[in-house]
Amino acid sequence: MSVTVFSYEQLFEFATAVFVKIGCNDEDAILAAKVLLSADLRGVDSHGIARLSGYVRLWDAQRINACAQIKMLHQTPSTATIDGDSGLGLVVAPKAMQIAIDKAKQAGTGWVSVQNSNHFGIAGYHAMMALEEDMIGICMTNASPLVAPTFSIERLLGTNPICVAIPAGNQPPFVADLATTTAANGKLEILQRKNGVAPLGWIQDKNGKASTDPHELKVGGALLPLGGDREHGSHKGYALGAVVDIFSAVLSGANYGPWVPPFPAYVPMPTDMPGKGIGHFFGAMRIDAFRPGDEFKQHMDQWIQRFRAAKTAVGFEKVVIPGDPEREMEEVRKMNGIPLLGPVVNDLQYLAEKFDIAFPVS
Amino acid sequence: MSVTVFSYEQLFEFATAVFVKIGCNDEDAILAAKVLLSADLRGVDSHGIARLSGYVRLWDAQRINACAQIKMLHQTPSTATIDGDSGLGLVVAPKAMQIAIDKAKQAGTGWVSVQNSNHFGIAGYHAMMALEEDMIGICMTNASPLVAPTFSIERLLGTNPICVAIPAGNQPPFVADLATTTAANGKLEILQRKNGVAPLGWIQDKNGKASTDPHELKVGGALLPLGGDREHGSHKGYALGAVVDIFSAVLSGANYGPWVPPFPAYVPMPTDMPGKGIGHFFGAMRIDAFRPGDEFKQHMDQWIQRFRAAKTAVGFEKVVIPGDPEREMEEVRKMNGIPLLGPVVNDLQYLAEKFDIAFPVS
Repeated sequence: MSVTVFSYEQLFEFATAVFVKIGCNDEDAILAAKVLLSADLRGVDSHGIARLSGYVRLWDAQRINACAQIKMLHQTPSTATIDGDSGLGLVVAPKAMQIAIDKAKQAGTGWVSVQNSNHFGIAGYHAMMALEEDMIGICMTNASPLVAPTFSIERLLGTNPICVAIPAGNQPPFVADLATTTAANGKLEILQRKNGVAPLGWIQDKNGKASTDPHELKVGGALLPLGGDREHGSHKGYALGAVVDIFSAVLSGANYGPWVPPFPAYVPMPTDMPGKGIGHFFGAMRIDAFRPGDEFKQHMDQWIQRFRAAKTAVGFEKVVIPGDPEREMEEVRKMNGIPLLGPVVNDLQYLAEKFDIAFPVS
Repeated sequence: MSVTVFSYEQLFEFATAVFVKIGCNDEDAILAAKVLLSADLRGVDSHGIARLSGYVRLWDAQRINACAQIKMLHQTPSTATIDGDSGLGLVVAPKAMQIAIDKAKQAGTGWVSVQNSNHFGIAGYHAMMALEEDMIGICMTNASPLVAPTFSIERLLGTNPICVAIPAGNQPPFVADLATTTAANGKLEILQRKNGVAPLGWIQDKNGKASTDPHELKVGGALLPLGGDREHGSHKGYALGAVVDIFSAVLSGANYGPWVPPFPAYVPMPTDMPGKGIGHFFGAMRIDAFRPGDEFKQHMDQWIQRFRAAKTAVGFEKVVIPGDPEREMEEVRKMNGIPLLGPVVNDLQYLAEKFDIAFPVS
């Protein structure tokens, strides 16, 4: 498949222009582009600019409000509930995370549940906002139902990611950003494109039988919770995905379970929806609300160094600290640019024509 | 293997008497027995009265202070850091969780990190304390290193459980209580006793090779993070276990990673320990800090009912709501008593003689 390389700045400008064209004010357009492109920089290609046309289709379908004004529905010293006003999650999420951070400055920690939002890009961006403030950042979201709970054949949960970002001292931060499924949906999409074989434990067919055919997902199959099957702990992955769903949506008044609005605009909305939009949950904990920052950072550095230096099994070079691969990818792509696959470039060219925006020359 | 059945009351009285004999005041002894026995009631036999002799051996080895006075080291409106004074985790943990609950009453949420503690029984007991207050309860702890991070042959993490307890309305609460490994250590101990075969993905041998022999754990092997191997997402289980370790110990000033004190008293303490004792982390979030309680409960009931009614794959009766099996077991055992295996009964008889306590007649 053909690959074209663009600079970060080219794609950032292009995405910003598209967000302006759908009606975002300049500030929101820049923020949305920054969040979106952070996925491409970090190597999470499925959540980056490849989704830009998907957001536009949701806007075309009037499911996204580009002029959203977020509203505070309820608050205490350490909590808030936010109505995202059907806005782009790419804009709603960092604003909600900022509220969590501001709460933490006053009360030690801040926790924000969000209703009436949309897909927010990568969880990592939002959680990592806390790092600059010497706080631990936490971020989760529910998502279109693609995952069957253990023993079920129904798709009732999204891939419902959890991200935890923890500052260190001399070491780079610890950033765990994980879907609560065996494999992220992006990996399945790649296998579908090349007619590949999925490892057993990633998906099941419409009857709940383990399958290696990634196309089963299009005919009633489902992704599997982390663990894969009951014997390997899939009930734990299911429980974690459920917690994300409940914190993000039952706590905020968003939709949960099978009622979460689908990301693809051509999929009809569920009926009898109990809440508003999709839901997110954010947390910020000030390190010095627990312990002097320098003591924490010294121990966090030791933690990271000890794990990075752990003896490996034959054939493996090193133990990976969560966040290392994405940070290394970011360094490479900032320098060498972001490679996009042919179909993604075609999508962007379509958007350039639709909105009469100059398409970047690679 | 022979099984003897005792009533809850018999075992509760016996355990209380043992805790008094090692020096606990009456109040702490009753609390410790209640926490310990809650594991037996809920069917988590590995964490119940079967461990009583283990706690006594730690006390014999002067690693547990039965007269501990917990101390507040640091606090903000929504946080606290507690020194457990080398006390029984069974006593330190519910006291720390109570502080989290009290903080939540004032600030909306409460978060408590604990250093200088010991094994605290089941995480579920502590998290579920929040339910009575219409709060979400969260509980985690680090533990003796038995788990190898992805790609490693070193045991650097414990089974590091996470429990999240969420109240509902007419439905029973949602209680997810899970080790961040494929299989809990208790399941391996059962297989070791009967020379059984472990499923691939539970353990590896000392060279990091997947193994089905549960005895490998005694000769340098390791438990595997949830996911089992990299292809099935073990890096996610490793990341979750790492977060538990960091929240419980790096945040509090307890020991982390390979330096966590071992539960078996015959295992020597690690050298160059960076902190004090083992660490826990507790959270309490008031439902009405986010949303009116009745609205939340109505939606939580709907969530539970929808998942419980999900269509199942052939051969499975129903989708399990986290907490259901343990609650059902508790009802059975409250009525019919608690069955103990021969070796556990022998251990208790030894304690009865050691401390000159009447042994209950089954």
